[in-house]
Amino acid sequence: MALIVQKYGGTSVGTIERIHRVAEMVAKTKAEGHDVVVVLSAMSGETDRLVRLAHDVTPNPDEREMDMLLSTGERVTIALLAMDLRGRGLNARSFTGRQVGIITDSRHTKARIARVTAERIKAALAEGIIPVVAGFQGINEQSDVTTLGRGGSDLTAVALAAALKADRCIIYTDVDGVYTADPNIVPSARRLDRISYEEMLELASLGAKVLQSRSVEFAARFGVPVEVKSSFTEGQGTLVTREDTEMERVEVSGVTGDRNQAKITIIGVPDRPGVAAGVFGSVAEANINVDMIIQNVGQGALTDISFTVPRADLGKAVPLVQRVAKEVEAKSVAVMEAIAKVSLVGVGMRSHSGVAAKMFQVLSREGVNIMMISTSEIKISCVIEEKYLELALRALHAAFGLDKGPA
Amino acid sequence: MALIVQKYGGTSVGTIERIHRVAEMVAKTKAEGHDVVVVLSAMSGETDRLVRLAHDVTPNPDEREMDMLLSTGERVTIALLAMDLRGRGLNARSFTGRQVGIITDSRHTKARIARVTAERIKAALAEGIIPVVAGFQGINEQSDVTTLGRGGSDLTAVALAAALKADRCIIYTDVDGVYTADPNIVPSARRLDRISYEEMLELASLGAKVLQSRSVEFAARFGVPVEVKSSFTEGQGTLVTREDTEMERVEVSGVTGDRNQAKITIIGVPDRPGVAAGVFGSVAEANINVDMIIQNVGQGALTDISFTVPRADLGKAVPLVQRVAKEVEAKSVAVMEAIAKVSLVGVGMRSHSGVAAKMFQVLSREGVNIMMISTSEIKISCVIEEKYLELALRALHAAFGLDKGPA
Repeated sequence: MALIVQKYGGTSVGTIERIHRVAEMVAKTKAEGHDVVVVLSAMSGETDRLVRLAHDVTPNPDEREMDMLLSTGERVTIALLAMDLRGRGLNARSFTGRQVGIITDSRHTKARIARVTAERIKAALAEGIIPVVAGFQGINEQSDVTTLGRGGSDLTAVALAAALKADRCIIYTDVDGVYTADPNIVPSARRLDRISYEEMLELASLGAKVLQSRSVEFAARFGVPVEVKSSFTEGQGTLVTREDTEMERVEVSGVTGDRNQAKITIIGVPDRPGVAAGVFGSVAEANINVDMIIQNVGQGALTDISFTVPRADLGKAVPLVQRVAKEVEAKSVAVMEAIAKVSLVGVGMRSHSGVAAKMFQVLSREGVNIMMISTSEIKISCVIEEKYLELALRALHAAFGLDKGPA
Repeated sequence: MALIVQKYGGTSVGTIERIHRVAEMVAKTKAEGHDVVVVLSAMSGETDRLVRLAHDVTPNPDEREMDMLLSTGERVTIALLAMDLRGRGLNARSFTGRQVGIITDSRHTKARIARVTAERIKAALAEGIIPVVAGFQGINEQSDVTTLGRGGSDLTAVALAAALKADRCIIYTDVDGVYTADPNIVPSARRLDRISYEEMLELASLGAKVLQSRSVEFAARFGVPVEVKSSFTEGQGTLVTREDTEMERVEVSGVTGDRNQAKITIIGVPDRPGVAAGVFGSVAEANINVDMIIQNVGQGALTDISFTVPRADLGKAVPLVQRVAKEVEAKSVAVMEAIAKVSLVGVGMRSHSGVAAKMFQVLSREGVNIMMISTSEIKISCVIEEKYLELALRALHAAFGLDKGPA
């Protein structure tokens, strides 16, 4: 008998029929002799509906009030599922974030979990009750409702699994696991049976939307085994877990692309100390995340500085950069929107040398020009022209043998 | 400067435009120098939508889970209004039933208020904040969400007004006050400027849906002056307050009808002790409210017993009564559905004699047969055939000079 935390996302509870299906899955797990804690998101579309209502009321809705508003979505689904389970003769009870003791800081709409008491859940489990918990929400020290940001229900599930020392945290979603690449772009992409926390973190931060980054960090910190699987189909998913020797046998676990970046280049910057600090200081002050930075070797005393920012922040970033460029007497500012970042991720890079060289060869063979490069211990990213993204993903996926599976 | 509790019902917050209008009214009251506490219902239709969802999930939804579900409706409106007010530069804050300390018993879906702490509201008012409070909901000693039953937002408003010793509690609704009769039936019906708690209670229990009975009881107990007025039109409403000498000058304050009763008659009951106890004991055990009871003088040792029950409970009541009738060897059971109760209400009855006699004369003159009569200190009710209800209401309204107003 194990203690299993099951989290169902918005599409899994999007209709009454799907709530019935979740109830059946919970009942089945219970019938197999396990203890179950269920964590739910709001019905798909509900959070968007509430956000629209708020913006219809006022252009910049207050964030504390936004949390009061958004936290209702999960309360609806937990009540409905608990009713459903009770209607089937199972002893289930719904609990809000407050009731299970998800204590957060006061950063409304993006609160961070400070601690999890989980006392009412422990008491409920001891009585044989199935707790059905509202994801995404907590309460601050002033007893005000907070929310954990988009994807926060994953974090609720992982944090509860950690607090309860659960044997497994299963994230049910609309895909059946983590893939070696986006199957919409790379048809030969394969589902991974296992992936390390570190790789999952890189993939999450690169925009693979299967698991929210902070929940992966949390799982890694507390060693919670997380399984990602489909709530619509039977069968195995992907287990996110500690790195093991099996994983190191492959060079690369996955390849991923990101279109949400844009490149800004300051051309003809006088090569003297403090220029870079001036540029990136003012960009950081405007809360714009700079991802990759390269400084080209220029002609004589002049140099070029290129960097990427989220495409959505481009309108805010360009005037700032132009002002700074003028101050430091740079020649001009160039912007390139149609770029993409293609990345290889894998703990195997630690033990396999030559992954970067092979990546550059593959891209070069396909005629894809590399504009920027950045690397971490388990990741290599290249910025390329956006139009080559699909080609690059498919070529790299094949070249690293990802369609064949582990040797 | 006064402290005013304003309660807005579901139709008053049913759309974004109407929420804007409420925000304007609150802003105006604040600008006049008053302190305001706002209590809101859910958007009209929302509670029904949630009830339907629950019944789509399971035929008999658990009541604790129902409360978790239904309590979301008011949280949406308080968040939206607080955002709206803040967007206008006013310092408003939403609070749930829990956050303002509405402590109830654990009778889910129909909880009774045990106490009101109102600490966060007091603190907020001291800081110049406009508290926007979720009506209809509270929390029990186990920290579970409870709801106060339909119309419970009125009770929240009155209970907060009592706890805060507010100068006035204004119930904004879709009618502009309490009328001498239902204007849809009696076109000459007039709005009353003032009415006593006792009269309002009789009217509420007789089915005039302007104010929930329990909130009137609460207002009477704590002496909270309650004003009922329209949120859609300007102008005066009706003040519900302690009885005063002005009120006693009229014989009757209002006339009201109720179609929700049905009459059951047990014919030919042996006239011996314990028979009535047997009948009404079993009806009470089935949680059916008996309203009026009469026992006719029968022929010889046999008597007839007639009583009214809510029409909705008739299906449940009749088999019960038939069983008891058989046990006591009564002759038969007759049911009459098409009845109505017409009632006169007025504290003036205490000082004016002959109100009952005049009522019977008026009905007789119109050819309306009286089947049952019941009286209280400030009310006389007659059960008549349903088809005569409108006629009876109009005739009584005119005969008691209600269309003319106080002398």
